[in-house]
Amino acid sequence: MRSIIIASTSKVFGGETLDYILEDLKNHFKNTDEILFIPYARPGGISHEEYTQKVKEPFNLIDKKIIGIHEFKNPIKALKEAKGIYVGGGNTFVLVNQLYKNKCLNTLKEVVNNGIPYLGTSAGSNICGLTMSTTNDMPIVYPPSFKTLGFVPFNINPHYLDPIIGSKHMGETRETRIKEFHQFNTQPVIGLREGSYIQVKGNNITLKGNLKARIFEYKKEPYEIESNTSLNILK
Amino acid sequence: MRSIIIASTSKVFGGETLDYILEDLKNHFKNTDEILFIPYARPGGISHEEYTQKVKEPFNLIDKKIIGIHEFKNPIKALKEAKGIYVGGGNTFVLVNQLYKNKCLNTLKEVVNNGIPYLGTSAGSNICGLTMSTTNDMPIVYPPSFKTLGFVPFNINPHYLDPIIGSKHMGETRETRIKEFHQFNTQPVIGLREGSYIQVKGNNITLKGNLKARIFEYKKEPYEIESNTSLNILK
Repeated sequence: MRSIIIASTSKVFGGETLDYILEDLKNHFKNTDEILFIPYARPGGISHEEYTQKVKEPFNLIDKKIIGIHEFKNPIKALKEAKGIYVGGGNTFVLVNQLYKNKCLNTLKEVVNNGIPYLGTSAGSNICGLTMSTTNDMPIVYPPSFKTLGFVPFNINPHYLDPIIGSKHMGETRETRIKEFHQFNTQPVIGLREGSYIQVKGNNITLKGNLKARIFEYKKEPYEIESNTSLNILK
Repeated sequence: MRSIIIASTSKVFGGETLDYILEDLKNHFKNTDEILFIPYARPGGISHEEYTQKVKEPFNLIDKKIIGIHEFKNPIKALKEAKGIYVGGGNTFVLVNQLYKNKCLNTLKEVVNNGIPYLGTSAGSNICGLTMSTTNDMPIVYPPSFKTLGFVPFNINPHYLDPIIGSKHMGETRETRIKEFHQFNTQPVIGLREGSYIQVKGNNITLKGNLKARIFEYKKEPYEIESNTSLNILK
C-alpha cells in the first residue's frame, strides 16, 4: 500500500528541521531503521555531502540512519533496495534535472507506488504532483521536462503564501501566478501552507497539519479546505 | 546605434502604467509614431487583444500608435518592418515559449541590434539578458530553451525585492535564489528594483531611475550601485 507524506516545508518559522512532524515520521518509517536521502535539490547550492550531513540530525532523534543516494555507485539500484525514501527541498529545477540525468524518476515512482514509504518536503513535495509547473523556484538550470512523479492527480504549490496586505511590490501574488497556470493547464493545484502536509495511504489522499489549504481548480473560484479533509475529489 | 530601455516594471506602486518613464519614452521613440507591441507574456493570462488594448492608453498620451504583433499574418515580417518595439510583462515562460514558437527571437535580436528602439518591462526586460534563468515567474509552460536575446552580457532580475525584515516565511529570499543561480552559472546578475531601468546606447550600458541596483557577481559578495553608473564592467 502506498504511504507518502508530502510536506510544504521542512522547517516552520522558529522551529528546527522537521521537528513539527517528527512524531508522524516515526510512525511513517516504522518498518525501517535506514532511510535513503535524495539531496539533489541542493538548497543554497550546498553539496550532496553537506546536505546529507544536515539531514542526519533530526532523524537521529527518532533513531533512523540517513544514507545519501550519492554514496551509491548505482542510484537506481539504491532506490530499488531502499526501505524508506526522503527527498529534501532546495531548487526544484536542480532536483528534477538531476533525477532525469541519473534516470531515477521511473524507478522512484515504481518503488513508492509499490509501498516504500516516501517523505517529500518543499521541492521534494512539488515533484509528487503531475508536473513541477507550480514551483516557486528560480529556473537556474534547464531540465529535460517539467513532468514529475504524479503520486497525486494534481499539482502542488509548497510554501503557499497569502497575499501580503499593504505590500507595495508590483510583482505577482502567488494566487495570480496559479491563476495564470490555469490559463495553460487544467489540473487542480493545492496551495500548501508551511506546516501543512498531504498524507497518501493507498488510494486515500488527506490534508494534514494545523492549517487550512487553498484549492485552485480550473475555471472555479479558489477556496479553502480544512485539515483532515479528503483530497480524493481533486482530479 | 542600439537604443534599448530595460525597465524593472511597467507600473510603480500608486502609479499608472509607464507614467514614471513616459517622458523618457517620448525621446526614446522620437523617430516613429508607431510602435509594434509584443503581448506574448499575457499577464494574468489575458488575450493578446486585451493586452494590446490596455497598452494603447499610456502611449496615446505621447501620441504613439500601438499595433499588436498578433494583428500581422507574418510576425517576422512585422518585426523587420517595425520602427519601434515594446515587449510587455507577464509570464516570462509564456513569452519565451511564444517567441520560439513563432521563430521571432533571431529577427527581434537582429533588428534591435541594428538600431530599432526597444522597450522591455518586467518579462520583456528579463529576455534582454543572456538567459531567462533569473526570472521570478512560475514555469507554467515549457519553452524549448532558456536562452534569450543577450542585449546585455549579464542576466536580469526584474522586480528585485529586498529581504522582508521580520518575515516568518521560510521560502527563499530573492538574494538566496540568485546565489543558488551562481552555483550553476557564472554570468553577473543585476537585481533591478521597481522604478529602475537600464539604458543601452550603442555599446554603453547605464543604470537609470531614482534607485540603486544590486549586483551579483560569481564568487563575490553582492553590492549596490548608484543610478547613472555605467554597467559596462559587468561581463
